[in-house]
Amino acid sequence: MLKTAIVGASGYTGAELAGYVSRHSHLQLAGLYVSENSLDAGKPLSSLHGKLRGVVDLPVQPLVVADIAQQFADVDVVLLATAHEVSHDLAASFLQAGCQVFDLSGAFRVNSAEFYQQFYGFTHQFPELLAQAVYGLAEWNAEQIKQTDLVAVAGCYPTAALTALKPLVEAGLIDSASKVVINATSGVSGAGRKASLTTSFYEVSLAPYGVFTHRHHPEIEAHLGHPVIFTPHLGNFKRGILATMNICLKAGTTEQQVNQAYQQAYADQNIVRILEGQWPAISKVEHTPFIDLAWQQQGDDLIVVSAEDNLLKGAASQAIQCVNIRNGFAVTEALI
Amino acid sequence: MLKTAIVGASGYTGAELAGYVSRHSHLQLAGLYVSENSLDAGKPLSSLHGKLRGVVDLPVQPLVVADIAQQFADVDVVLLATAHEVSHDLAASFLQAGCQVFDLSGAFRVNSAEFYQQFYGFTHQFPELLAQAVYGLAEWNAEQIKQTDLVAVAGCYPTAALTALKPLVEAGLIDSASKVVINATSGVSGAGRKASLTTSFYEVSLAPYGVFTHRHHPEIEAHLGHPVIFTPHLGNFKRGILATMNICLKAGTTEQQVNQAYQQAYADQNIVRILEGQWPAISKVEHTPFIDLAWQQQGDDLIVVSAEDNLLKGAASQAIQCVNIRNGFAVTEALI
Amino acid sequence: MLKTAIVGASGYTGAELAGYVSRHSHLQLAGLYVSENSLDAGKPLSSLHGKLRGVVDLPVQPLVVADIAQQFADVDVVLLATAHEVSHDLAASFLQAGCQVFDLSGAFRVNSAEFYQQFYGFTHQFPELLAQAVYGLAEWNAEQIKQTDLVAVAGCYPTAALTALKPLVEAGLIDSASKVVINATSGVSGAGRKASLTTSFYEVSLAPYGVFTHRHHPEIEAHLGHPVIFTPHLGNFKRGILATMNICLKAGTTEQQVNQAYQQAYADQNIVRILEGQWPAISKVEHTPFIDLAWQQQGDDLIVVSAEDNLLKGAASQAIQCVNIRNGFAVTEALI
Amino acid sequence: MLKTAIVGASGYTGAELAGYVSRHSHLQLAGLYVSENSLDAGKPLSSLHGKLRGVVDLPVQPLVVADIAQQFADVDVVLLATAHEVSHDLAASFLQAGCQVFDLSGAFRVNSAEFYQQFYGFTHQFPELLAQAVYGLAEWNAEQIKQTDLVAVAGCYPTAALTALKPLVEAGLIDSASKVVINATSGVSGAGRKASLTTSFYEVSLAPYGVFTHRHHPEIEAHLGHPVIFTPHLGNFKRGILATMNICLKAGTTEQQVNQAYQQAYADQNIVRILEGQWPAISKVEHTPFIDLAWQQQGDDLIVVSAEDNLLKGAASQAIQCVNIRNGFAVTEALI
Repeated sequence: MLKTAIVGASGYTGAELAGYVSRHSHLQLAGLYVSENSLDAGKPLSSLHGKLRGVVDLPVQPLVVADIAQQFADVDVVLLATAHEVSHDLAASFLQAGCQVFDLSGAFRVNSAEFYQQFYGFTHQFPELLAQAVYGLAEWNAEQIKQTDLVAVAGCYPTAALTALKPLVEAGLIDSASKVVINATSGVSGAGRKASLTTSFYEVSLAPYGVFTHRHHPEIEAHLGHPVIFTPHLGNFKRGILATMNICLKAGTTEQQVNQAYQQAYADQNIVRILEGQWPAISKVEHTPFIDLAWQQQGDDLIVVSAEDNLLKGAASQAIQCVNIRNGFAVTEALI
Repeated sequence: MLKTAIVGASGYTGAELAGYVSRHSHLQLAGLYVSENSLDAGKPLSSLHGKLRGVVDLPVQPLVVADIAQQFADVDVVLLATAHEVSHDLAASFLQAGCQVFDLSGAFRVNSAEFYQQFYGFTHQFPELLAQAVYGLAEWNAEQIKQTDLVAVAGCYPTAALTALKPLVEAGLIDSASKVVINATSGVSGAGRKASLTTSFYEVSLAPYGVFTHRHHPEIEAHLGHPVIFTPHLGNFKRGILATMNICLKAGTTEQQVNQAYQQAYADQNIVRILEGQWPAISKVEHTPFIDLAWQQQGDDLIVVSAEDNLLKGAASQAIQCVNIRNGFAVTEALI
Repeated sequence: MLKTAIVGASGYTGAELAGYVSRHSHLQLAGLYVSENSLDAGKPLSSLHGKLRGVVDLPVQPLVVADIAQQFADVDVVLLATAHEVSHDLAASFLQAGCQVFDLSGAFRVNSAEFYQQFYGFTHQFPELLAQAVYGLAEWNAEQIKQTDLVAVAGCYPTAALTALKPLVEAGLIDSASKVVINATSGVSGAGRKASLTTSFYEVSLAPYGVFTHRHHPEIEAHLGHPVIFTPHLGNFKRGILATMNICLKAGTTEQQVNQAYQQAYADQNIVRILEGQWPAISKVEHTPFIDLAWQQQGDDLIVVSAEDNLLKGAASQAIQCVNIRNGFAVTEALI
Repeated sequence: MLKTAIVGASGYTGAELAGYVSRHSHLQLAGLYVSENSLDAGKPLSSLHGKLRGVVDLPVQPLVVADIAQQFADVDVVLLATAHEVSHDLAASFLQAGCQVFDLSGAFRVNSAEFYQQFYGFTHQFPELLAQAVYGLAEWNAEQIKQTDLVAVAGCYPTAALTALKPLVEAGLIDSASKVVINATSGVSGAGRKASLTTSFYEVSLAPYGVFTHRHHPEIEAHLGHPVIFTPHLGNFKRGILATMNICLKAGTTEQQVNQAYQQAYADQNIVRILEGQWPAISKVEHTPFIDLAWQQQGDDLIVVSAEDNLLKGAASQAIQCVNIRNGFAVTEALI
């Protein structure tokens, strides 16, 4: 049993992680942490997330940064469900304490100092960790994940987009002069667990946001290697992302080539489900670790649609997939 | 045209009031006010409530209390969509400035100093205004409303409950040894327009709150004259209240007596709709000024259900009903 | 007062039309009709649409086709909220009876026999009516609407798309080698009022449908004069359409040119609202006759977003706009 | 591994059962059945319930009644997620084939021929099975469940009501002259998976139904032994039941007595969760097998609130609880 700690446990992703760890045959919940000054410190996790009552009743503890070395000495796995600033500052300490670190923030997702300067507005202090970090898009980077102690779990929108688009790029099917158009809609949990007028029940409907400015735009381009236009939307549902993508294929690309690209990428994968005769829908993936894909071609125009639960394949379950891969467990352990 | 000002215009009720005033043949919007320190001061109302763009684009102004006498000298009607403390403190100033005051808060709803001490936790400073104020339950107090300058518009839950129960009390049909059981569910707008985890989209589902402690409980009892047990619930919808009431009738009460009680109360009323062969539903009343009623009897047990839009018949449209009654306009002017 | 009949009154659009007619200063509700064999025949409209109780309690009558000439002899305006087959078959009869006909179906929207053969699967029998019909996109065809007795009110998605895109085409700003990408999401009322597993509460979430095959695709292209890729989605809300459009501008197009194109098109229009500093959202337009627009440019990429209520600007309120234009009433009469 | 068949597998409850069986350490899915003429026959269950793709892809087969004896000879456990008429007709055949039968319909819930005559409108043909059947309210009838082959799993509303009320009746705390008032709201899945205007997305809001006539009313009274008034409501959510109950306690009943009654009943139970300092909410129980309870007393008035997932504790998970109890497995096996 690997002793597993969750930092940032009080948020929606933290709670999902706690549920998974409690169901995992090889992980044992060693501690739940929140920031030192959190008002939630000391409360049972299940008092914050009523669903977990009787499942995970452990209290969330304040994380004292100075004590990490000692307190995490016998912890095997640390899951960071923290803001990127926090992950940036703390990852090194957990690594030094000998932990495997799975970071769900954006702090280590792109190996480029410039990227952080430009899109996150700060100077990254750990270029050597950036170099060491593996991007946790589980189906694509399994070999590298097995060999690192720092996994930067992919973002929610990037997972939805890259899972749909990477097979096409790998197969060289996209018209190189075109940009891929990505329109995606996320449920409100994507904004995290905090009071805000934007995510208040009365105000939420369906609307775009972050047009041309969302940080997942450069993350997608960095890991896709092809330019995109990404427009996120907020929808009136709790969880889930649906992404609809418009691709200009190279002239003459056949349906068979497209099918083959996807089969080659995912025929042996359990978590990516290729639908036939149906389109993905939020209802089919919410509360599941799956990501669903379907596509249709007309001439050189291809439309691909993906759907996932933003808190699971877009965060918590993909983190556990990475833990499973890193440690040689069955990929779907605790997930299905 | 009566010059009409709305204080507390930035909230959900304020916005509904502004819409009604803009459609009213005899009212003219003279000003929209928010508290002096509000971050919204200076913004067009339609920038806060996108629906009103092109309908009410007037900016909301900071209300300077010291300037009321002068600034409201030529205002005829003031609609207070403010917290009860604000209404309590300001009503007298508006009355002195010669305005008719329609207060949508709880500050003047019960003519009893004790009531405010016990349920609102403060000592009411204006007993003479309490004595002068008329409870704005439009169908029941029309004669008194015509003769006052201070109307305390009824609360949202009390409107739903009293409209359903007063006919029975008036007709003497309720078993005097029993308590009426009121279970009601309100949409999230009842909690007002402010960021709160309780009303965030992810957190809202269906749950009771304020059990045995909601301030509308004593408001209902005070105006019904019969003891009740009132349990409010928060539901996952934007607007509307559905109230289901269980009544023990006096032994031997006939269906005809019950029907007659309701017919007598509401046969000539436009806003109270008695449904036949259907039950009230939120969907039938949301975005309307109506309150729907239906009931069924079995032996001495009576179940009565009412539904209304909490922001309209439970607040804004009832306030306009009161304005209409007070000034001799058609009761439904601007409402239907 | 123009005597106004609504055919297909029992559906969601029919009910909205009835509400508008009841509020209109120059229209008088002369009759509500359903198909001859409808189970709803004889019922008050308000028993089907509870919101209308006390507003429109007229019963819906079975339409006897053989009696149209006589029964509609003194009817001035007929609003057809019927399936396209019904509109196709009946429009001529109403025109012969001397009525102005405003058809909300697709039966007369494109002046091309081929179009109906290809996309609707039938041979249009009334080429002379197709030639006479004016496309009821109110802001664009006012002059022709004034002079016809047959208005083919624009479809819901086409209204959302064309309102956003026509100014750019008119100004010649779109790269002619590119296709405009339209992704739109509609609430469930777009599917009409009938029981279906697809629109049952448990099944609805967010998902694409009709990819490459929706009939509004050729309708948009026919009236835009530029190729598009249109992907509709069904969302978990009752009413409203949000459309996000990706446009490749001609190289070097400036923001000023884009702004000017929109200003020129809509500066004098009340129903099209250009937002500044905000994006359209379903919540801002539902239950209103407005269509909201906003856009953002980056290099030669332009993203335009529009939102409307599919039952109103996408159907009923736009029909009334057309009635108003045709008869010289204020464009917004009964709407705001 | 017990070979387990699900009859009525295509419905919402059937799909939940299939998920549980697939996760169960001691059950093996032996077959999924639908009625002989079902249009779904032959389709993979996951094509009807997209969530199950990759989890349960077995096709649903038509159940040929004449073949039961042979076809179910080596089946150990049959879960009937069928209409009560079907369960009534088939249970004996499965029992004769040697199966344990867990029936989720109302066909065997009350051991009284009269009950079926009066409330279900038919003459029960199997009085000896009624006598043999054990009511599957898992926490209360474990000892009898262990010794029967026919479990009539409790209804969804009765589970919510009885779990909350039985401890009070057992402890003799309810005023015998009073009726318990039960107001409950269920999500739309309670109505089953079939197209209906009543459960279409556009039509659903919050409204009562089945007032004084719902079949769960006599089921509750039969198993509680105390008269109740039960008013069910349909709410705008997919799954879950919240029940709010008003109880007149015997004069002088103390809070300690009430607490003790609940502690005594549930201190050793995992699935019933007693909340402290919080009220039950749909969001805390949906997608879980738990039922949550909380209460508050004022004088002799007690309000108790319970919440459960109607498809799980109100159906599928309770059936599995019963299977677990009957076969000596851990009660929560496959559930948590």
